[in-house]
Amino acid sequence: MSKATFYHAGCPVCQDAEKNMLGFLDQSKVNVEVVDFNQNASRINEAESAGVKSVPALVLDGQPYHINYGASIEDVKNG
Amino acid sequence: MSKATFYHAGCPVCQDAEKNMLGFLDQSKVNVEVVDFNQNASRINEAESAGVKSVPALVLDGQPYHINYGASIEDVKNG
Repeated sequence: MSKATFYHAGCPVCQDAEKNMLGFLDQSKVNVEVVDFNQNASRINEAESAGVKSVPALVLDGQPYHINYGASIEDVKNG
Repeated sequence: MSKATFYHAGCPVCQDAEKNMLGFLDQSKVNVEVVDFNQNASRINEAESAGVKSVPALVLDGQPYHINYGASIEDVKNG
């Protein structure tokens, strides 16, 4: 089973991607965790370590896939 | 059934996304078509009309989702 983590920050682009893309992932193949930095700022470092530069982003088995562009990680850090 | 079109241009970022992301889409929910502009340049206009600005991109029920950044549509047009 693969692991995907969807990182977002509540931005409109993030919400769109969560609503319209995540549901198409095959849950028999991948476990999806959703992390909202507004509620879990402590996980920003983990995302950066995986190579996440902006949100929304999906880290799939350790590889970062940025989906459109909502906000940079720097913006997210600065609130 | 939803429809997804994955547009790419053979770039390394495109190949990575095709190989590592597309397989996780739930084929019971979405029909996925892969369009390589190197073989189907005539479909660039269709992608642009859907809002695709760069490749690789997945157009999901008409909405464009750019996945990382391989090349701009302008670069693709110019070969």
